[in-house]
Amino acid sequence: MGVFSKDITTLDDLFVHTLRDVYYAENQILKALPKMIKKATDPGLQQALSEHLEQTRTHVERLEQVFEMHGAEPKAIDCPAMDGILKEADEIVGDVADKQVLDAAIIAAAQAVEHYEITRYGTLATWAKQLGRPDCASVLVETLEEEKEADEILTDVAKGRVNAEAA
Amino acid sequence: MGVFSKDITTLDDLFVHTLRDVYYAENQILKALPKMIKKATDPGLQQALSEHLEQTRTHVERLEQVFEMHGAEPKAIDCPAMDGILKEADEIVGDVADKQVLDAAIIAAAQAVEHYEITRYGTLATWAKQLGRPDCASVLVETLEEEKEADEILTDVAKGRVNAEAA
Repeated sequence: MGVFSKDITTLDDLFVHTLRDVYYAENQILKALPKMIKKATDPGLQQALSEHLEQTRTHVERLEQVFEMHGAEPKAIDCPAMDGILKEADEIVGDVADKQVLDAAIIAAAQAVEHYEITRYGTLATWAKQLGRPDCASVLVETLEEEKEADEILTDVAKGRVNAEAA
Repeated sequence: MGVFSKDITTLDDLFVHTLRDVYYAENQILKALPKMIKKATDPGLQQALSEHLEQTRTHVERLEQVFEMHGAEPKAIDCPAMDGILKEADEIVGDVADKQVLDAAIIAAAQAVEHYEITRYGTLATWAKQLGRPDCASVLVETLEEEKEADEILTDVAKGRVNAEAA
């Protein structure tokens, strides 16, 4: 969540700080997903990732909407967690030669990304409600549900096709 | 997942590589949790984290069991994802002065840790089954269920007490 945590004194500060952390994370995902799509070979996996790329654009817009609703500046702050998750994805996906094993690695990497987002949007929605902002919480829950759905679709792809071929 | 990914050619290699990634992650969590427990002020949160510390010791043992069952050396490899998640936790938790806000930040950090583990154990269990190792999968699913439960307990603590006080 970056180096500004000394400025956090209230739950409202923590909420805005975490919004900015996730804003950074979503923008990094926008850069990473096209590379994953290019590397993936399973058509079902490519489709799932492509659809999630479209959704991610909407998630960025929704975050900007929440910033505006809450009267906070929509800026990104470093997110070492997402940097680490994407670094790991890059390393593992970069060197696997076998196509089916590569697809399995891509699914695992994409699911690690999804789970980070699930936990952060869940936290943000809870905090928004506690702060008396059910309107912000509703927008955040919309994205939360899509992240959970994306994770489930990847599990289905993994269970149904890729892993069986790779084994 | 470290720098050994060029050695990955089969799903079995990927499985062992990811086991080692999670082995590193669990050991880092063992070091991080006592600091979180010390900083937490809500008794329910302290208890939830203390119980999870005990569980984490069991999770490390279970991983060693799976390494042995699978005939692989139980070694840890760098996990940039968990390093990033814990770095972020350290930064955010380090500088929050208000006790209730600090507790909310600790819960968020602990849930990010849980979700990383949930995704990795889910992936490992799926791969173990695909590799014809339902015995390894069973051990991994035991931990997976405990990680999910730990995440739910933290959600309950967050919703029930800490956030309401911090707002």
